[in-house]
Order: sequence, then C-alpha cells, then structure tokens
Amino acid sequence: MSNKIKWGVLGGGGDSLIGVLHRVAASMFDAYQLTGAVFNPDVHVSLAFAKQIGISTDRIHANLDDMIAAELARPEEDRIQVFSILTPNFLHFPMAKQLLEAGFHVICEKPMTMTYEEALELQKIQQKNENIFGLTHTYTGYPMVRQMKQMIANGEIGAVQKVDAQYYQGWINPLIHDQEQRATTWRLNPEKSGISCCMGDIGVHAYQMLEYVTGQKVQSILADLNHLYADNQMDIDGTVLLRLGEYTKGVLRSSQIATGEENNFTVAIYGKKAALKWEQENPNYLYLLEEGQPLRVLKPGHGYNSEFSLDGTKLPPGHPEGIFDAMGNIYKGVAKAIRGEKFHEGEFPGMTDGVRGMNFIEKSVQSHRDGNVWVTLES
Amino acid sequence: MSNKIKWGVLGGGGDSLIGVLHRVAASMFDAYQLTGAVFNPDVHVSLAFAKQIGISTDRIHANLDDMIAAELARPEEDRIQVFSILTPNFLHFPMAKQLLEAGFHVICEKPMTMTYEEALELQKIQQKNENIFGLTHTYTGYPMVRQMKQMIANGEIGAVQKVDAQYYQGWINPLIHDQEQRATTWRLNPEKSGISCCMGDIGVHAYQMLEYVTGQKVQSILADLNHLYADNQMDIDGTVLLRLGEYTKGVLRSSQIATGEENNFTVAIYGKKAALKWEQENPNYLYLLEEGQPLRVLKPGHGYNSEFSLDGTKLPPGHPEGIFDAMGNIYKGVAKAIRGEKFHEGEFPGMTDGVRGMNFIEKSVQSHRDGNVWVTLES
Amino acid sequence: MSNKIKWGVLGGGGDSLIGVLHRVAASMFDAYQLTGAVFNPDVHVSLAFAKQIGISTDRIHANLDDMIAAELARPEEDRIQVFSILTPNFLHFPMAKQLLEAGFHVICEKPMTMTYEEALELQKIQQKNENIFGLTHTYTGYPMVRQMKQMIANGEIGAVQKVDAQYYQGWINPLIHDQEQRATTWRLNPEKSGISCCMGDIGVHAYQMLEYVTGQKVQSILADLNHLYADNQMDIDGTVLLRLGEYTKGVLRSSQIATGEENNFTVAIYGKKAALKWEQENPNYLYLLEEGQPLRVLKPGHGYNSEFSLDGTKLPPGHPEGIFDAMGNIYKGVAKAIRGEKFHEGEFPGMTDGVRGMNFIEKSVQSHRDGNVWVTLES
Amino acid sequence: MSNKIKWGVLGGGGDSLIGVLHRVAASMFDAYQLTGAVFNPDVHVSLAFAKQIGISTDRIHANLDDMIAAELARPEEDRIQVFSILTPNFLHFPMAKQLLEAGFHVICEKPMTMTYEEALELQKIQQKNENIFGLTHTYTGYPMVRQMKQMIANGEIGAVQKVDAQYYQGWINPLIHDQEQRATTWRLNPEKSGISCCMGDIGVHAYQMLEYVTGQKVQSILADLNHLYADNQMDIDGTVLLRLGEYTKGVLRSSQIATGEENNFTVAIYGKKAALKWEQENPNYLYLLEEGQPLRVLKPGHGYNSEFSLDGTKLPPGHPEGIFDAMGNIYKGVAKAIRGEKFHEGEFPGMTDGVRGMNFIEKSVQSHRDGNVWVTLES
Repeated sequence: MSNKIKWGVLGGGGDSLIGVLHRVAASMFDAYQLTGAVFNPDVHVSLAFAKQIGISTDRIHANLDDMIAAELARPEEDRIQVFSILTPNFLHFPMAKQLLEAGFHVICEKPMTMTYEEALELQKIQQKNENIFGLTHTYTGYPMVRQMKQMIANGEIGAVQKVDAQYYQGWINPLIHDQEQRATTWRLNPEKSGISCCMGDIGVHAYQMLEYVTGQKVQSILADLNHLYADNQMDIDGTVLLRLGEYTKGVLRSSQIATGEENNFTVAIYGKKAALKWEQENPNYLYLLEEGQPLRVLKPGHGYNSEFSLDGTKLPPGHPEGIFDAMGNIYKGVAKAIRGEKFHEGEFPGMTDGVRGMNFIEKSVQSHRDGNVWVTLES
Repeated sequence: MSNKIKWGVLGGGGDSLIGVLHRVAASMFDAYQLTGAVFNPDVHVSLAFAKQIGISTDRIHANLDDMIAAELARPEEDRIQVFSILTPNFLHFPMAKQLLEAGFHVICEKPMTMTYEEALELQKIQQKNENIFGLTHTYTGYPMVRQMKQMIANGEIGAVQKVDAQYYQGWINPLIHDQEQRATTWRLNPEKSGISCCMGDIGVHAYQMLEYVTGQKVQSILADLNHLYADNQMDIDGTVLLRLGEYTKGVLRSSQIATGEENNFTVAIYGKKAALKWEQENPNYLYLLEEGQPLRVLKPGHGYNSEFSLDGTKLPPGHPEGIFDAMGNIYKGVAKAIRGEKFHEGEFPGMTDGVRGMNFIEKSVQSHRDGNVWVTLES
Repeated sequence: MSNKIKWGVLGGGGDSLIGVLHRVAASMFDAYQLTGAVFNPDVHVSLAFAKQIGISTDRIHANLDDMIAAELARPEEDRIQVFSILTPNFLHFPMAKQLLEAGFHVICEKPMTMTYEEALELQKIQQKNENIFGLTHTYTGYPMVRQMKQMIANGEIGAVQKVDAQYYQGWINPLIHDQEQRATTWRLNPEKSGISCCMGDIGVHAYQMLEYVTGQKVQSILADLNHLYADNQMDIDGTVLLRLGEYTKGVLRSSQIATGEENNFTVAIYGKKAALKWEQENPNYLYLLEEGQPLRVLKPGHGYNSEFSLDGTKLPPGHPEGIFDAMGNIYKGVAKAIRGEKFHEGEFPGMTDGVRGMNFIEKSVQSHRDGNVWVTLES
Repeated sequence: MSNKIKWGVLGGGGDSLIGVLHRVAASMFDAYQLTGAVFNPDVHVSLAFAKQIGISTDRIHANLDDMIAAELARPEEDRIQVFSILTPNFLHFPMAKQLLEAGFHVICEKPMTMTYEEALELQKIQQKNENIFGLTHTYTGYPMVRQMKQMIANGEIGAVQKVDAQYYQGWINPLIHDQEQRATTWRLNPEKSGISCCMGDIGVHAYQMLEYVTGQKVQSILADLNHLYADNQMDIDGTVLLRLGEYTKGVLRSSQIATGEENNFTVAIYGKKAALKWEQENPNYLYLLEEGQPLRVLKPGHGYNSEFSLDGTKLPPGHPEGIFDAMGNIYKGVAKAIRGEKFHEGEFPGMTDGVRGMNFIEKSVQSHRDGNVWVTLES
C-alpha cells in the first residue's frame, strides 16, 4: 500500500484549468495520491471524469455530505487526509467549514471566504480543531519569492522604508465597455463574487505578497477604486496607499483594465541598505539593487540562495520552472505539515493570510466608499 | 557672418553637467552660436571658462544687468536672441522675468520658479511680450515619447482609462539616514529648494509627462508624501492619486529613497483599445500592448513612426541615441520657433507646463498637509 | 480499472533529477500510470524507492530481463505499454533494442545510442516492429518552439536563408582546469560518454532544433572543436559551420566552458521575409523580426498561436510554464500515438532525430580530426 | 582667440548622417573648432552648406589640394591641425596619404583604405611623420566597452578561453533578392566598395572589437562567406572561425541578411574565472558572469568603473548616453593626443587597427575562395 497522503478534490473536473494545476502540483514531489473526489455537482460527470483521468471511481461521491460520511466510515489509516477546495468562490467557506469541523486538513483556493466575518469564523474553527489549512496564494511558492522573503528576514536590505506592488491585467477590458456584458458577467456580480472584483481577485494577492516578503503588517490603507461605468457595481481597478509604520509607506496598484497586460504582478521592496524586485511573468529573476554596486540578478538553484529557496527548485540553473512548480512547492509544504515534518516559516500561506486578506478587501471598499479616507486594518 | 541663432548662457560653467548638456544640445543641429555668457558670479571665473571652451571673451559679463545692457546696446541683428538659464533654482524666476521683459527669448531649466504665484506672474509677462519660452522637461525630447504622444492623439489606443507614472531614484537614501547630513543638504532646505524636494524635483517631471503624452489635464489629486524623519522638513518620496475625469484615474509615484534606483522614470497609458509604455532608462523602446495581439516594440528611425518622432532621430535604427539627443531635440524646436518656422505641437515644453507644474507641486504638499485629501488643480 | 497508459521506468530513482522530470511530465495530462520499474541495479533500492514515491512494489524488478519476462506473461490489456529509459547513456541502446524487440513502445533519454551504427540498427528494429519511439529532445516541447516551427512551415518568414543556434553552458569550466578532475570525470571519458562531450551532450540539441524548426536537413558541416588541454580527449566547446543548401548557410555554437552561462540555448532563423528568434532561458517569448515593422513578441496561450502551440499550453497568458511543461507536452504526444489518436507533425522527436543526431556527432568529430574540413551528413 | 583645436572636415556635408555624427562628437568636450572644409566636390554646395551650419566661408575650398596649399600658407598657430575624412571609401586612402605627408593629423572613417597594401603604405607614412591618426571604430568609445577592456586587462575574468562576436544587420535583405537592385547597388560593386561587403563593412568592426577588448591578436582564421546569389560578387554574410592561441578559439558572425536586425552587434569574452558580455543596441549594460555568483550588470558613471570608463561618461547613472557620446569620446582622445596630454591605452583606435582590419578583410575573402581553409593573419 502506498504511503502517499490520501488526497480528495472538490471541484476542478472537466476542462478546469485550476484542476490541472492542482493535480500536477500534487504529483510533483510524489507526496499525494488522488483518492476521492466530488468533481462536479452531477455525479455522472464526476464519474466520467474520474475514468478519463484514470482514477478509481470507488470514492467519487455526489456531494460533500456523502463524501464526508463515507470517509469517516473508513478506518483512519485508509481515510482521505486532506481535501483541496477548487469550487466556485461562494462555496469555499461552507465547504472548508464542514471539512475542518469533520477533522480533515484543507487546501483552499483563494478567496478563502466571501466576507471577513466568515474568515474569522473559519479561523476559530481551525484553531479549535488544529487542522492544517493551506491557502493557495500560489505566487509565494516561487523559489525567488522565497529567496526575497528570506533575504529581507536576514536583514540584507536593512529596514524596509518603501514598498510597491503592482498587479495589472487587462482581461476585463474587452467586456467592460459593453453594457450587456458588464451587466451579466458573474465576476461583476457582487452576489457571486463578493463585494470586490479587482481587489478581491488580484489586489489581495499583491497585499498578501507585500506582507509575505516583508514579514510586516500593513496597518492602514486609503483606497481609490475605479468602476469605469456608473452602472457597474464592482471595482475593476484601484490604487491603495499603504502604511506599515509611521514612516514606512507604500502603494499597491491593481487593475483588470490595464489593456493588454497579461498577469503583470510585480513587487519591489526598498530598504535602508538595498532593494529587491521581482516580476511574476519572469519569475526566475530576483533583482538586488544597492547604491553604488552593480545590479545583481539572482536565479534559482544556485548555492547562494537560501535553503528555503533551494528546497523549491528541482532542476539545475537555467532550466526554467513556472507556476506549476510554484504550486507544487506549496503542496510540498502542506505535505510536510500533514506528516509532522519540519517546514519553513512561510512554506505555505494559510488561515492568517486568508483572514487578513478578507479584511483588506473589505477595508479597501470601505475606504473608497467613504471618500478615499484612511482606514485601519485589524491587527 | 554666421546665420546661427545667437545664444547666451547664464550659469553652467566649470564642471557643471547641466552646462555640458545644454552646450551639446545646442550644437546638435548647427542652429545656435554660443555668443555671450555669465557663467559664474565671479567674472574672472567666467572669463577663464570662456577661454577653456574656446569662445570669445568679448561678451562675457559680470552679471545679468550688464549683459542685458550691453546686448541691448548692440544693433538688433547682432544681439543675442535667446538665453538659457542654468543657474540655481531660486534665480530662475528673477532672471527669466528680467530677460522676458527686456525682450529676449528664454530657455529655462526646471523648476521654472519657486512658487506658483511667481509662475503666474512670469506667464503674464511672457504673454504680454510674446517671447518664446522653452522649459527643459528634457524627457519629452525623446523620439519614442513623441511617438507615444502622437499615437495617443491619433486615437490609436482609444480613450485613455488609466495612467501610471513612476519616477524612482535612490540618491537621497545614502544621506537621509544621517541626521547631520539631512540637516545641511540644500536639497532638503525649503529656503533653497522650495516647498518640496521629491515632488518638486522629479514628481513634476512625471506629472508633466502624463499630461504631455495624453494631451489631457489632471483635474484633482490626493497626495501621500513621506519625510522619513520627523526632523526632515521636505518630502523625499510620495504617491499621488490622480483624476483626469470621473472615470479616468491614475497614480503617480515618485521617490528619492528607492534604494539603488538610478533614474527609473516610466510611464504607462492604458486606453480602451490598447496601451503604450515607455521607460527612460531604455528610451529607444516603446511598447504597444493590445489584447490578443503580440506585444509590439517600436523603435526610433523607422518609417512606421510619426513625422514628429522621426524629426528627432538623427541616425538609422539600431544606433542608440540618449538624453543629449533628447535635449537637442528641444533646442531644435525652440530654434524653429525663434526663426518663425513651423514646429510640432509639443516640440518643446513651455510656460503652460511650468505654470501647471508649480501648481501641481504646491497642491501635492497641500493635499498631504491637510491629511491626504483631494485638491483641485487650477485649470 | 484505470484507462491510463501503463508506464514503466528504467532508472531515474533516488535523487535523480531526470526521474522527477519524467514522472511530473507523465502526470501532467493524466495519461500515464506508473506501473512498474527497475529504478536501480539494486532491487532493494528500487523497492524502497517505490515505497517512497507511493507506488505498488508488485511490478518492481531486479533487471530488465525479469521485467520483460514478467510483463509478457501478463495478459496484454494489463501489460506495461511503454517504458522510459533514464539509465546512463551506454545503456540506452541495449535497453531500447531489447524493449523494441519485445514489442514495447519506448521513450528514450538523449543520446539515443553511443554510435551512429547503433542508431541505424535501432532504427531498423523499430521500423520492423512499428513500435512508437520518442526521444526526449525536451526543448521541442515548448509552446513557442512549436509556434516557431509552425510559422516557418506556413511560410511566414519566407525561404530560410540563414540559421544560427547557440548552446552555451559553463559547468565544465570549474573542473577542466584541474588536471586530476579532468582525468577522472566520466563526462570526459570516451568509454563512458562516447566520442564527444560538448557536441554529444548539447551541440546535438542545437542541431536537432535547427532541423526541427526549419523542417530542413543540414547537408554538410565543418567543425572546429576545442579540448582546451592536450591531455583532455574530449571536445568541450566547438563551432560548426552548416550548409542546408548552396546558399542557405548557418552556424552552430556550443560550449561547456562559456564561463557563467547556465543553459543559454538560443535559435535564430532568418528568412527572406522575416526572422524568428527564441531563447530557452526565457522560453515564453518568441521574437518576430520584420524589416520596417515593430518587433513583435509572441507569447503562449494567445489565439494568434497555432493550434499545435496552443495544445501545449495549459494556462492563460501570463502564467509562466517551464521545462516540466515542455517535457509534459512530449509525453502527451507519445500518449496520443500510443492511443492511436491524431497528433501533430513534430509533436514528439523520435527515431529519425536520434539517427541524424548520432550522425551529426560523429561527423563533427571527424571534420575536426581531419583538419576542419567539410563533411557530408547522411541524408 | 579660441584655444580650441582647429579642425577641418572633408566630406560630410548636406544631409550626411556621418557629418552630423562627427560635428556633434567634435563639439562634445569643447575641444574642436570647425575651421575649414571641403564638404562637397562642388564648391558652391560646400559654401552653401557652410552658411547653413553657420560657419565662416573663408576656409571652404574646392578640393583638398587647394585646402592643403592654403592652410600651409598660414602661420602654424593659425593652421588647421587635424582633418576628418568622411568622403566615400575609395577616397580615404589618397586623402589620408596626402594629409599625413603634408604634416596634418587625421581622423579617418572606416575602412581606412581599399586594400591591405594601401594600409601598409599609409602606416609607413604615418610612422615616418609621427602624425596622430585616429580611425573611427566608434563602438570602442562606449564607456562600458572601455570598462570591459580594462577589466580583462586587469585579469578580472582570468585567461581568455573563448570569444564570440556577432554583427547582424538586415538592411541588404530588401534589395538582394531583386536582380536589378543587386546588380546596381554600389555596396555590392567591388570597384566602389573593395573586395568585401559584409566583412569589409561590419565584420571588421567585430574583429577589431575582439582584439580591442581582449588585448590579444587573432592569429589565424577560417571563413565561410555567403553571396546568396551566383550573380552577386560580394559577401553579404559570413562566419569566421578564429584562433587566438592553440586552445583559445572563437567565432565571428556577421550578416547583412539577418532579416529585421538593426545593428545587433554583440561581443562575449569567456575567461577562466568569469565572462563579460556587451550589446551595442543596449550599450549602457555590461554583463559579468561568474560561476556560482549572481549575474552582475555594470552601468556607466558608477564609482566601481575604471577611470578610463568614467572618463567617457558625462552624466550621472541612469541618464542614457548613445552613439554620439561614443564618438565624442574618441574625438576627446584624439584631442588629448594632439595637445600632448596623457591619454589611455585604447582611447582611440588608430593605424594598427586599420592595418590589421584590412588584413582581416582580405584574408577572410582568401580563406573562403580557397575553400574555407585556415589562413594566417600578418602579425
């Protein structure tokens, strides 16, 4: 019998890209065995998909209730240990809640919940049950992001004095200018997507990344969002002023109408001694800027990287790894935690990131609605 | 006798880098003859410098009063036609005023004045006398900036929906952390530098560039500046939220504590149809982004560029031109104006840029002082 | 029962990077089930590794003979269909031969054999048995390489008039300068590595790529190799002049002493109408150069790419994929072939690439030994 | 009276780009005074051009004979000291010869002569007369090329073990495919252009650069040139194998049919300890590669650069300088030599570069004609 972690999946069937991403990530370090799933609300679709991807149909269920009941009925050593939640956003909270309460570990796609209140509730449950909870802020899995975090923690750039993150995409542009389309897209419907589109979907990635790499907390924010049309209820662009300390400031810029941009997510941290810059679209380069020194470009797999960074690189320098590899690293971290092995601080984002992220999203909207005023984040 | 424009220079002697920049720029299109100067408050220094650079000492004077008197005493056809003001900032306004009132044309280094009030006064004088006035926002002289302006004017990116400019330098970082140094640097002394350091020195370049390339006016701003130390009176970093229309928003980011950055000035304009991006440190590339199309990279000297852009390129594609060439293009534009030749809209920045820029600087400081609130710019 | 392809692996156990690469690639499209293996000459090691990565130990064998015998004893529908050969180079040929003769499909790591003669022998066997044979010239699996091939085939750059490929690494540099090390490294031992180090290991990748993307054959070559030390028997650097036609020329440059280079493999094809350039270290960009047109940069996942290219991209534009994904695409191609599905011309390199590659390696060495003279490749 | 160097110009009038380039370069450091000229074979055109660019017509002459006679008739302190030869290629040699014999210093555009024999003759004259002779291999004037030369001379990359230069342009591509055009273009006419087009025009730049930065001499070469059409007499593309020592090898690639390339001139030098790479189209970056170290990118104007490099940078880091500035640095070097001031080894290319370059061109053609064989360069 395999000693892999028994893994269940909710959602992610059919042509789902996120499903591919999670399955490949789970396979990368030979740590997980896909054991059961509710790929689809229609169990026939789920069963067909199981056959298609070549897994047993024995533990394919019609819904989460059945799944949980069946798994709990099994002896513990045969039971699915962790579930990945890849369903539509509004299902993240109820499913995570149910799973945590039933004692399962959870890997959850972002956003963790629809509201900050739900996030707090989920946090309480997890803290009580002591389950492992991973939140797939995938970009933190890149080796050079981990290197950035480590170097800042080591004091290599000195005290942080300025932060700047950008997350620019253009994909909403082609549909926002058409009245019919903007009225009907689920992404622009608050009931389906929550109170924010741009901040909720991508701004929160930039926010999490800033806190992740600096190891510091944003204290207060002032947001200016853009809806572009009066009849559009959701932000599709926005700039957020940040305060991490009285004199530690920054800015977060996020857009889905940055025409022609693909997934242009960048982060720059300026310290008293040096600076570090990273760009998601070219993730294998980390730029180190120091006054009066040549620009240095760090790349994965070299011995000058931290052990944490190297742990996430599988091949020798010059062999590009991509976003599948980043997600694989997060799955690897969760696997270590499930097995009780030692893992690195920050090896996978989790409940705290989710709670803080939901607070950021709600406060951004609040700051904007109240006339672009400073609001304090919950600490 | 030469038919070049007779050109006088105030300041810019000795090792002055700005002096080199202007002399080379003036020589580039064979349009100007350096005819007279007050290089230095000490006339002996001026005379020595004249000899050093190989020009006649006949029209070197001890001060501007003498210079103006001597030139006005000459027959008009022999008189210096235009003066470049390269003196310390606080002298820009009085010298420009005196020259304009005496009927000379003026090329002035930035900032035009110390205050918005002075700027308005200068504008009145110039409008009355109809002199030509060029303000050296040098970066507008790059061929690919001109191409960007022209393409936006032509509607090639559609209606502008988002603007983003960054001007990051790190040069103040090494001195700001030392209490003695930050107390004594003239750049951080409001009496010598005006009310703003970062916005006044570089933020205003970004502001002017945004209005230059879009052909639109920023209507209101909200600024968050950073002084980094309580005993430092001047901003050395700041982010400014921008409104160009109810739904046309943007952000301007400027810093002198972006550790390790050299002169990282970038501008991105996102339109309904496409986007254009440009970076000062690699000025010969203009990026055109369009949804679902390959990224296109435009370069100087090609036939696909506008006549305005091509007018500023001297060599075939692949022969890099730099900032001297950008300044040369501005001098070329002023020469056309002096000679009464046709020139392109935007061929050289001038009085309006100066007035709007001073207003932007003052309003940025006001917005910040009043608690990061929206303030309206004068139209 | 799973309908995945039953897959066996030879070699690639333990910390083998190539083992990880193949297992991840095989998992990417849910097409393969790792069913049996000889991971290591020591069966205990193999069994332990099987447990470690969570697969059944039932079909782990001590050697290939046992493996083949056991599989052939199974009913065909339960039998392993394809084996991947990841063993040391000198075992590629005998193992591939044995497997093909026994009726199995084969995926083989490069180099296919130790000599051209062996390559021809293997080709005969495969042609007789009609097995599917994939050779992992991994770089051909990148979506933008496929796009390059397709565009050239479509005539988008016109008739090819010049080709230029570079494969520069620096990894041998740290050891070649030490007499002891260069005498003992297996890579520099002809008995273990074959007659060529640099051309055999990486030059052949560049050669295969040039023929792959152009769809043309190199007719003759002139090679100048470098051994750097008189006591080193193997080439570690070399330049090869190429003729693809009387007036279609090119050059292939390959080095393992290009100090500090990682895996700098580039290919440029210049046609009568346009040119295409690609770089392995930034594999998601394909550069299209056309006289008098802006440079165009094509990226994966966009609708302007060919169906063949799109077939190898799993995520939306802006989500970098890397070398695992390239290998995954090759495995996907082999899977299609095994299942009798339609696949693209060039979807996986195979026997012809292997035969031609071995001929190229031997002829390069011959050209050099004979005094850098032109030699004709077998057609 | 000005103490600038009195400077004469032959050719370069009207719309001549090379004329602009030399005039701007001469003006950059305030060292030269344009004093006399034969801009054009038609003296009326010369006179009109002198007026247009605003210089006195007193010393504009109909031809070089008159010019020399008139200048020699002047007192030495009033005499033109140095002439720049910007005329068509076939006039370089006779004009340079006449000027050197008459005792003038010379700055000559490349190619220095039409043949190697002429080059040797010119060298003898110059050595006898001890005039200063500058040859405008402009690219050596870039600050980062000078830094590269200096670092190699300092041993910072260790012993050179491999060199690779590329000079790719595409400009002949649009005309070579038309029989009429290729028969009538002067560049493809040996009587007007000498025996080589591609090697003579740009290959020689790459050759000179390799010797310039390494401080070593190429000993022997093997060239494979391409004419593309049987009725075209001139090479328009070629690859040259290089030997700088028994185990120090390299390759030089040059093309005018590299479709869509602008002026893509690159040089890479790999040493035992590290490597340096530079690209003309982005001349302000010098890449330092070292095994196991982050890539370092050096830029002009920083204190870590050599004094030689810094001497050629006029503005602070981040202010791009271009090819005008490179030429200006060469003019600055010649000015130092004329004034008897100390200058840097390699501050301006000269007679030796010209002689070696002509030898390289002729030997390349010879190697190709003789069947791509090794030929020895004159030492």
